[in-house]
Amino acid sequence: MNESALRKVFQQIKSGRISVDEAVSRLRHLPFEDLGFAKVDHHRRLRLGLPEVIFSRGKTPRQVAEIFKRMVARGGNVLATKAGPEHFRAAKKLVRKAEYRELAQAIVLKQDPTKYGKGKVAVISAGTSDIPVAEEALVTAEAMGNEVVHLYDVGVAGIHRLLANRIVLEDARVVIVCAGMEGALPSVVGGLVGVPVIAVPTSIGYGAAFKGLAALLGMLNSCASNVSVVNIDNGFGAGYVASMINRL
Amino acid sequence: MNESALRKVFQQIKSGRISVDEAVSRLRHLPFEDLGFAKVDHHRRLRLGLPEVIFSRGKTPRQVAEIFKRMVARGGNVLATKAGPEHFRAAKKLVRKAEYRELAQAIVLKQDPTKYGKGKVAVISAGTSDIPVAEEALVTAEAMGNEVVHLYDVGVAGIHRLLANRIVLEDARVVIVCAGMEGALPSVVGGLVGVPVIAVPTSIGYGAAFKGLAALLGMLNSCASNVSVVNIDNGFGAGYVASMINRL
Amino acid sequence: MNESALRKVFQQIKSGRISVDEAVSRLRHLPFEDLGFAKVDHHRRLRLGLPEVIFSRGKTPRQVAEIFKRMVARGGNVLATKAGPEHFRAAKKLVRKAEYRELAQAIVLKQDPTKYGKGKVAVISAGTSDIPVAEEALVTAEAMGNEVVHLYDVGVAGIHRLLANRIVLEDARVVIVCAGMEGALPSVVGGLVGVPVIAVPTSIGYGAAFKGLAALLGMLNSCASNVSVVNIDNGFGAGYVASMINRL
Amino acid sequence: MNESALRKVFQQIKSGRISVDEAVSRLRHLPFEDLGFAKVDHHRRLRLGLPEVIFSRGKTPRQVAEIFKRMVARGGNVLATKAGPEHFRAAKKLVRKAEYRELAQAIVLKQDPTKYGKGKVAVISAGTSDIPVAEEALVTAEAMGNEVVHLYDVGVAGIHRLLANRIVLEDARVVIVCAGMEGALPSVVGGLVGVPVIAVPTSIGYGAAFKGLAALLGMLNSCASNVSVVNIDNGFGAGYVASMINRL
Amino acid sequence: MNESALRKVFQQIKSGRISVDEAVSRLRHLPFEDLGFAKVDHHRRLRLGLPEVIFSRGKTPRQVAEIFKRMVARGGNVLATKAGPEHFRAAKKLVRKAEYRELAQAIVLKQDPTKYGKGKVAVISAGTSDIPVAEEALVTAEAMGNEVVHLYDVGVAGIHRLLANRIVLEDARVVIVCAGMEGALPSVVGGLVGVPVIAVPTSIGYGAAFKGLAALLGMLNSCASNVSVVNIDNGFGAGYVASMINRL
Amino acid sequence: MNESALRKVFQQIKSGRISVDEAVSRLRHLPFEDLGFAKVDHHRRLRLGLPEVIFSRGKTPRQVAEIFKRMVARGGNVLATKAGPEHFRAAKKLVRKAEYRELAQAIVLKQDPTKYGKGKVAVISAGTSDIPVAEEALVTAEAMGNEVVHLYDVGVAGIHRLLANRIVLEDARVVIVCAGMEGALPSVVGGLVGVPVIAVPTSIGYGAAFKGLAALLGMLNSCASNVSVVNIDNGFGAGYVASMINRL
Amino acid sequence: MNESALRKVFQQIKSGRISVDEAVSRLRHLPFEDLGFAKVDHHRRLRLGLPEVIFSRGKTPRQVAEIFKRMVARGGNVLATKAGPEHFRAAKKLVRKAEYRELAQAIVLKQDPTKYGKGKVAVISAGTSDIPVAEEALVTAEAMGNEVVHLYDVGVAGIHRLLANRIVLEDARVVIVCAGMEGALPSVVGGLVGVPVIAVPTSIGYGAAFKGLAALLGMLNSCASNVSVVNIDNGFGAGYVASMINRL
Amino acid sequence: MNESALRKVFQQIKSGRISVDEAVSRLRHLPFEDLGFAKVDHHRRLRLGLPEVIFSRGKTPRQVAEIFKRMVARGGNVLATKAGPEHFRAAKKLVRKAEYRELAQAIVLKQDPTKYGKGKVAVISAGTSDIPVAEEALVTAEAMGNEVVHLYDVGVAGIHRLLANRIVLEDARVVIVCAGMEGALPSVVGGLVGVPVIAVPTSIGYGAAFKGLAALLGMLNSCASNVSVVNIDNGFGAGYVASMINRL
Repeated sequence: MNESALRKVFQQIKSGRISVDEAVSRLRHLPFEDLGFAKVDHHRRLRLGLPEVIFSRGKTPRQVAEIFKRMVARGGNVLATKAGPEHFRAAKKLVRKAEYRELAQAIVLKQDPTKYGKGKVAVISAGTSDIPVAEEALVTAEAMGNEVVHLYDVGVAGIHRLLANRIVLEDARVVIVCAGMEGALPSVVGGLVGVPVIAVPTSIGYGAAFKGLAALLGMLNSCASNVSVVNIDNGFGAGYVASMINRL
Repeated sequence: MNESALRKVFQQIKSGRISVDEAVSRLRHLPFEDLGFAKVDHHRRLRLGLPEVIFSRGKTPRQVAEIFKRMVARGGNVLATKAGPEHFRAAKKLVRKAEYRELAQAIVLKQDPTKYGKGKVAVISAGTSDIPVAEEALVTAEAMGNEVVHLYDVGVAGIHRLLANRIVLEDARVVIVCAGMEGALPSVVGGLVGVPVIAVPTSIGYGAAFKGLAALLGMLNSCASNVSVVNIDNGFGAGYVASMINRL
Repeated sequence: MNESALRKVFQQIKSGRISVDEAVSRLRHLPFEDLGFAKVDHHRRLRLGLPEVIFSRGKTPRQVAEIFKRMVARGGNVLATKAGPEHFRAAKKLVRKAEYRELAQAIVLKQDPTKYGKGKVAVISAGTSDIPVAEEALVTAEAMGNEVVHLYDVGVAGIHRLLANRIVLEDARVVIVCAGMEGALPSVVGGLVGVPVIAVPTSIGYGAAFKGLAALLGMLNSCASNVSVVNIDNGFGAGYVASMINRL
Repeated sequence: MNESALRKVFQQIKSGRISVDEAVSRLRHLPFEDLGFAKVDHHRRLRLGLPEVIFSRGKTPRQVAEIFKRMVARGGNVLATKAGPEHFRAAKKLVRKAEYRELAQAIVLKQDPTKYGKGKVAVISAGTSDIPVAEEALVTAEAMGNEVVHLYDVGVAGIHRLLANRIVLEDARVVIVCAGMEGALPSVVGGLVGVPVIAVPTSIGYGAAFKGLAALLGMLNSCASNVSVVNIDNGFGAGYVASMINRL
Repeated sequence: MNESALRKVFQQIKSGRISVDEAVSRLRHLPFEDLGFAKVDHHRRLRLGLPEVIFSRGKTPRQVAEIFKRMVARGGNVLATKAGPEHFRAAKKLVRKAEYRELAQAIVLKQDPTKYGKGKVAVISAGTSDIPVAEEALVTAEAMGNEVVHLYDVGVAGIHRLLANRIVLEDARVVIVCAGMEGALPSVVGGLVGVPVIAVPTSIGYGAAFKGLAALLGMLNSCASNVSVVNIDNGFGAGYVASMINRL
Repeated sequence: MNESALRKVFQQIKSGRISVDEAVSRLRHLPFEDLGFAKVDHHRRLRLGLPEVIFSRGKTPRQVAEIFKRMVARGGNVLATKAGPEHFRAAKKLVRKAEYRELAQAIVLKQDPTKYGKGKVAVISAGTSDIPVAEEALVTAEAMGNEVVHLYDVGVAGIHRLLANRIVLEDARVVIVCAGMEGALPSVVGGLVGVPVIAVPTSIGYGAAFKGLAALLGMLNSCASNVSVVNIDNGFGAGYVASMINRL
Repeated sequence: MNESALRKVFQQIKSGRISVDEAVSRLRHLPFEDLGFAKVDHHRRLRLGLPEVIFSRGKTPRQVAEIFKRMVARGGNVLATKAGPEHFRAAKKLVRKAEYRELAQAIVLKQDPTKYGKGKVAVISAGTSDIPVAEEALVTAEAMGNEVVHLYDVGVAGIHRLLANRIVLEDARVVIVCAGMEGALPSVVGGLVGVPVIAVPTSIGYGAAFKGLAALLGMLNSCASNVSVVNIDNGFGAGYVASMINRL
Repeated sequence: MNESALRKVFQQIKSGRISVDEAVSRLRHLPFEDLGFAKVDHHRRLRLGLPEVIFSRGKTPRQVAEIFKRMVARGGNVLATKAGPEHFRAAKKLVRKAEYRELAQAIVLKQDPTKYGKGKVAVISAGTSDIPVAEEALVTAEAMGNEVVHLYDVGVAGIHRLLANRIVLEDARVVIVCAGMEGALPSVVGGLVGVPVIAVPTSIGYGAAFKGLAALLGMLNSCASNVSVVNIDNGFGAGYVASMINRL
């Protein structure tokens, strides 16, 4: 439509109905996105294999289900995060092939099998309570076309467990580390690997954990230089950033 | 040496001077790093082209100069961050070829010309006051073997300046965004590019900026999913993470 | 009555029953509001077209309904904010014409059709989750006699959407911008318009959003100079301030 | 230049050298600001009578002086905030007519005598220590073409002083209120006037004043609905917002 | 009993059965409270007319009722704060004369009619939502033998209401002021009276009220010098301190 | 003058030059303070024996000296708090009899020997570092006409020192307790006495003392009900409140 | 198993099947824990008498019961903290001998009667509300083989109660002190004893207690030098640290 | 003296000059510490080998020197912490044998060679910047009669360095761990040893380290159960607590 508006200007100038000055003036008052920029955006997600994502918290099962269905229709992978069983049941009714990843509290439909990531993404978690966040990162990275390996329950107070299993880290191109409480694991992992580490503080802990603040501050002050941080409990964000990196 | 200790055990067992049980027992008491792990670390920096880095704040000019000289002797690039002119003068006396990057408050010596980064790193800053942090990121990325482009003073209150120059962003493999005050720029940039964005909150601002806290929180809550964050004023960290990503 | 007390003093002095000194002394001990100041206040709201407002949270449906009814009786528009469906049902029974604005969680009765505002108030929101706060601002501004236009879901990570629709902003005399998470939108909008911008941080977000604190700090530190801020989730306050401005 | 690029496209299409399709495609790849939007910005400040502003803190006297001189050359009023006597002396050498407003710590040159504001701006301060911030607001509003009245040292613990002088408030179209410590004054003033109130928390106080935080929180929670807030010590911002309102 | 132990020592020394050295040694090992200090404490509350107090929150109705009954048996007034209707019903079963002060959420039994306070205690509240805290202060002061007057809903945004009714304040020996949101009322009241003011921040408000923190900080930074502060929502503490003052 | 305006109205009505209606109308427009209320305030301090007080921090020696001199001229006691030796030297030149209380960092001139306080004020401090704040409280209470006793360096980690000297507390009508670090002393003292306790947190301590925040929070949460709190380091406020209480 | 891998290497070298170089190389690639370090860990808990511990919060009764049963099978004492009655009922079904410590909200099974602690651990609490945390510490210390004595409800506002009963403290080798609100008790206790004091802030209190923050800060700033601190409500941690100390 | 007062009472009763009732009454009014409790305290430090300690910060060199001299006269070891070279020079003049421990910023005089500690205290630090705090802990522990070993610069980002040197930890009875930034080291160390760990957060770091807050929160939330925490930069406290433990 806007393109047609533009074409109309061109045809008018071509046919001599308006002058060049007139044409310049008209263009200046056209909203510039109408020149096609917006369309790029409309198709970009699909072209890049970026999944459509629904943040389910605060939405009713019906709302999630309907958005999910609509997104599925556009093609590409679809991911609903922070989704409870009731969200899944509603989505399942509308999209038969939807899968529920219970630990991650995520509903997924993979329609695009492309491997966009060039190597492996490793997801590490400090305690068993951090697993939901770690799984959200894992599911996100998978939905964005990555091979993902994981290593859970390797907290720093039992450092040998991490060391004993560090082979998992060795061929990862990017590592996601989820930890609550003191949030120390990313620093240790950062020192062991030569690739980017995405740290995810979790809200696990009590008292002076202040719902993830302690872990967040710890990670921002990491003495390992290859660590960057996302928001508390933002497993999705970590999976997304890691995917961005892994497709480079 | 440790390897020789190990060899000694092996030779003793080979020659029958000690039993297998005895050998197992001895190994268990050897510090395991002595088996060669530590050595990996001693040479890793050099092999990977990672620069030696000195954090100058809190050190005397003489201290910085001497550490700088020692590091130069190991080969590889050397970088002293948060260094004042007095640090540079002292370093210059000991290392003639040391250069001072005034805006970045950094002393640099490039001895390794290798380009470790596969593409470009873009460094963006919101205000002119954020430039020192941005320059630290830039100098770090250069010292780690990256081609770096930059775009300064493109704050969100004059959004067209960023948009008019976004060509700078377009062929970057990773983007560093430095901003103080409300720290909004990474979100806008994150929405414009399809690559990882490293956000650096700066301590620029006053009052409720709380020395970078406002910008930090803003960046952690970015509505752009490809953004991860480093510590306040941590230009070095951003340059380091970006370099890690760009060499993938 | 108080006026009559005053008249009485005057008549006594006129008739010579009391001296001037006596009269001065008596006046000094009269509560000064009794001289008519308070009455100004009693009628001011009505005269200025300021709506009566009920903050429903923490009140029972019955309480809200009864206050609503009483206020309706005074004439003028009546607005109950943060009202749930159960509050509305109760109010509806007592005031048949009461309307429920579901998104805004507001009950409204417009009895005064006067347009007090001279131009348009624009209400902008960053994400869909910010809409309830934006709608509260919108409903408030309408109840105070303004023409209101709105533009929702134009977050900074998709900056072209805002730019494509900025025509909405162009003829507004005052703009309200609601945003949670990093709260960056007011800065961008502030840079696009030449009128006052009222920023409303919302409690949308999680983790380091700290229930609106991140957005609040971001807005207070806005690099756009035409931005002022109200309390977190205070859509009503924003609508009120904007109305004050628009009637100038 | 960019316009000439655009003209070139138009002339090519006019002359038939390129097709409409070709033209559409070329335009899509032109940076849109090149279509003239940016220019609007270059002249907007001057046209609107918005002063050029320099934030002097952290800049050397020479830097401030040179920027000041450059800005003066563009015409329009020029304002340097947070400027010490040494900044002024340097500026004075380059711009003979520059004036120093000592209380406001501001350097001003008025070249544009236009009254952009339609009515009066009132500036109120709670204590004598808040005067520098109040004066910055006052000077800013004056530099932006407003008539400004002020009323200082009318803190809430001596409420009669404010009440006795409230005539100052009565014909203001917008009121700026500066207060440190508990920041209560804007609420009281907000209750007395029927126009917008811009509250400025100041960093005055000690102990639990936390450098303006107490006043800031107090103002954000004002029980007067016509109050909006700017950053701590941001007298400039308050003057700017008030000017925006007063020219409506 | 302990006194008897002491007497025993004395009688032994008197009768020559133990030496002075021995006596000194024995006394040194007696817990010193046993020398009578503790008893002072056991009877002090009763003698001073201090009520027994139960903090009901977190206790079951049965627990509160039983403690209440036990305390009643000791004589003196008994007060249970933060008590819901279910606590009252349980207490009523065991103590027929117990009264419920619904607004204050307090259960009271007055057994001691003594007027310990020499003058009046005034209780002021800023908004209607602050009344529960104000009532707790009022009930506490009454239970401690004071005449109490009150004045509610006189917030600072309608300052004339307070001024019109300040006669209430005039003959109070001590004033309690309860306010949430910006907590400004104590400063205004403090400026109007020449007696001590006890400020009680309430948790009323939302967003940046941070559950009473804004009001607390405001009150601590009061520009009125006769103001001291108790904990958020601590109506009981305010009533207690005021009673202590009023009996001087 | 205002009274004369009032008298003029009265005489006009008396003489029949204006009607009662006219008189009512005129009074309504007179600022009410002009009816004499303000004058009460002008003389109140002197009549009540309240000292004039100068907060010296942030003022030059000359400024302090001049204000001091002016206040001395009004009669009554004069107190300058937070005054350094340089402030004193300047004041001394203008007011020969001014005294310097070095520990309290206060300049005092006692012109009014009246004992306004009925009993003793006791000032207690936890550590030697808290003495400056304690002395400010002491000097303030003295300047306001109280007999003051003190007891220093009786921190809770050596509880017997306090207990051994508690005779100091026994005949005080009000107790001021100054403490930094954990701020525990007011609770212990509060439990020992049956009179009001004014707690003053000091900024003494380091690390997690957060400049007095730890002590402040401790005092606000005191388990002794007779404790109320003033701002951090606010020895003056404590002395003022205590004086208000002691003159009841 | 890993040891057998190691033995295999040794036997191969002994038998000449591999060279010393080969052996060195192989060892370097074995995960080092496989050399026996990990096994130490596997048996360490049991050997040291450290109980297996389950943090029940956030786990279902069934989950807790099953983990409990599994741990019981390993021998040694088993402890489930933060366990409700429903957790206990489930555990009881699987482990008949499990006991419920209601006040401590802990499920315990003692299978190892060894007294690992050399002396007594004393557990002190300030208020009755702190008892659950104190009991958790007590139960933990018992489960780790200590003799434990306790003294509850000895808050600092009634200091004589603590002093009268301090005999409990006198023969303890380590003291645990639990307190909420102002958290002052550890300082007082620390001054009375000559042994280590472990301070546990509890989340008891309201308003400015900020869920234990006030107590935490108070304890960290204790003026008694023998005090160290664990997390808010971390009775388990305190019991654990105390046990570590008591077995020295 | 007090004992003599007591003896006097006893002799009077013995000689029949006073009755038992009279004696009871007199004792009740004697300060109880006078019964000998205080004396315990006067000699306790010396008997227990506890050093006299001066906190030098905020004291003049002369003040420190004089207190130091006075303490030396009492016998026992003397320690002045946070002492600069100028403090030392002054102390040296008065106490010839005083030694300066530069890294620890401590002045020490050892007069008591007794080894009060039964085993070794290990002091570990994460970075070179943490060494001053670690050295303060070390010097304190030495001054309290302990054998101390140390291990510096073993941060968690280079975990093998710690592991390679953990032999230092193995025969320690108590371990002190100092770390700034993310404060992760105590958790790792806590997992490696079976003895108590005292964690000391340092104020090392910048930005979101918030002067040690990040490290403090990290340590309080340590996932290793044998960790307790002292105040930020409180090396002295850590050394003191460790000494208390080591002498058990």
